[in-house]
Amino acid sequence: MRVFTLKKNLNEAVKTEKKSGKTVGFVPTMGALHDGHLALVKKSLQENPVTVVSIFVNPTQFDNPEDLEKYPRFLERDLHLLEKTDKNLIIYLPLAEDLYEGSVRAKPYDHGGLDRVMEGAFRKGHFDGVATVVHLLFNAVQPDKAYFGEKDFQQLRIIQHMVDKEKLPIEIRPIPIYREKDGLAMSSRNLRLTDEMRQAAPFIYKSLMKAREMAEQGFTPSEIKQKIRELFSRSPLELEYFEIADEKKLKPAGDFKENKHYRGFIAAYAGNIRLIDNMRLK
Amino acid sequence: MRVFTLKKNLNEAVKTEKKSGKTVGFVPTMGALHDGHLALVKKSLQENPVTVVSIFVNPTQFDNPEDLEKYPRFLERDLHLLEKTDKNLIIYLPLAEDLYEGSVRAKPYDHGGLDRVMEGAFRKGHFDGVATVVHLLFNAVQPDKAYFGEKDFQQLRIIQHMVDKEKLPIEIRPIPIYREKDGLAMSSRNLRLTDEMRQAAPFIYKSLMKAREMAEQGFTPSEIKQKIRELFSRSPLELEYFEIADEKKLKPAGDFKENKHYRGFIAAYAGNIRLIDNMRLK
Repeated sequence: MRVFTLKKNLNEAVKTEKKSGKTVGFVPTMGALHDGHLALVKKSLQENPVTVVSIFVNPTQFDNPEDLEKYPRFLERDLHLLEKTDKNLIIYLPLAEDLYEGSVRAKPYDHGGLDRVMEGAFRKGHFDGVATVVHLLFNAVQPDKAYFGEKDFQQLRIIQHMVDKEKLPIEIRPIPIYREKDGLAMSSRNLRLTDEMRQAAPFIYKSLMKAREMAEQGFTPSEIKQKIRELFSRSPLELEYFEIADEKKLKPAGDFKENKHYRGFIAAYAGNIRLIDNMRLK
Repeated sequence: MRVFTLKKNLNEAVKTEKKSGKTVGFVPTMGALHDGHLALVKKSLQENPVTVVSIFVNPTQFDNPEDLEKYPRFLERDLHLLEKTDKNLIIYLPLAEDLYEGSVRAKPYDHGGLDRVMEGAFRKGHFDGVATVVHLLFNAVQPDKAYFGEKDFQQLRIIQHMVDKEKLPIEIRPIPIYREKDGLAMSSRNLRLTDEMRQAAPFIYKSLMKAREMAEQGFTPSEIKQKIRELFSRSPLELEYFEIADEKKLKPAGDFKENKHYRGFIAAYAGNIRLIDNMRLK
């Protein structure tokens, strides 16, 4: 496994591979890897002779410094999991100063309105941080394809939008959500849940299933939203938002139109830990 | 930079290099790298076309579990420092279970009496842990040369003895102690010193200089030892031992014989932190 902390060394290695005509897949992560991450890596390995995985807890996308501080870090374990997955992976562990070329700050991006709701509304500056670091990582790695989980669906859409707008020659490949057996979406944050909250957390998944059932039965978005909020008020989780929006523009839905896909989106606190999830409803 | 956590992958990479006739240098470390470590790496790079550096905080050589727990770990920073030193290094980050093949325990070694004094006397089982892990690492890496700092002089002698006894085809290369400007021997533990104790710690070096001066002036080992203990009794450091021994057998010296080299050896507590150092006296 090749590991680089410096952009110029990574770049040199990737360029050499590309010169021999190989396509390069890229999986950006913040470490604390779980099977959901490894599914992205495996997909990239299927589709590309060369795969780069980055591990970087990007400081500019945390609106809450405490959240950044508490983000779990397991570099040794992560490297081991990656090596077991494929010993020919290229791993990029950026140094913040080197990746950001000195000024570790988010740049403002025009997200075309995709950031007005949900994560964008509740985590100020989050998506500028995400777009900034993904853009920098894309410049550093220069992949042909990049793999993102649908768990962060809004992030995925914002990155697709950035790539279109910046005319980057990169194909964004969305990968379905990986779930624990009880339905909880896999997340590095799950490790920080108390036992009690870990027991309660699959309620997020159950409420999305309920929303999908209601959508199939013909209930309107506002009826579904009211019901889900009511269900949450009787759960140990604290709902931050439940939203129904179309998959393309992420505009909150007044009603379900025939020619569009819609998703339900949830953010909720399980104790101190903020969890998100989403599901296609229609 | 190539990084491996699994013995079989490391082994394969090293074997390929050796088949093409290259010699392999090896620098085992416990991470938290400083310039002293990097000096070992640079020496190996000068002497070998291939250098392997291992980072492994070996649990079986800590007699004190708290000491193991508190041992500083900076894997990201360490990898960056190594990549800056040479981007073609091979890094081995062993998993304990893989390196030890299941049973993470020290084996008893016959150290030929070298373990009867100093570190061996004050840290029960320490050198069995050291010999066990170095032997396992040597088997995993199969280097031609291995580089050890003279700061752990007794360890160096014990490893040389183990290599002789086990007839391993490995040349042990001792490297002189690297010191801070004020004389304090470089050590990962220095990072844990309080400001006050960091100020006091160079007294260890100064007392070794004093011992050397006295040896040159014709004082006997017992006169020197008495003087150094007296000096320590008036310092903020707590002396664990000061010993004078010959470099070969590490036997405490009754007097200085003409045809032998002698060293002064110190272990002292600076607050909670145990520091060691040594210096050739004659």
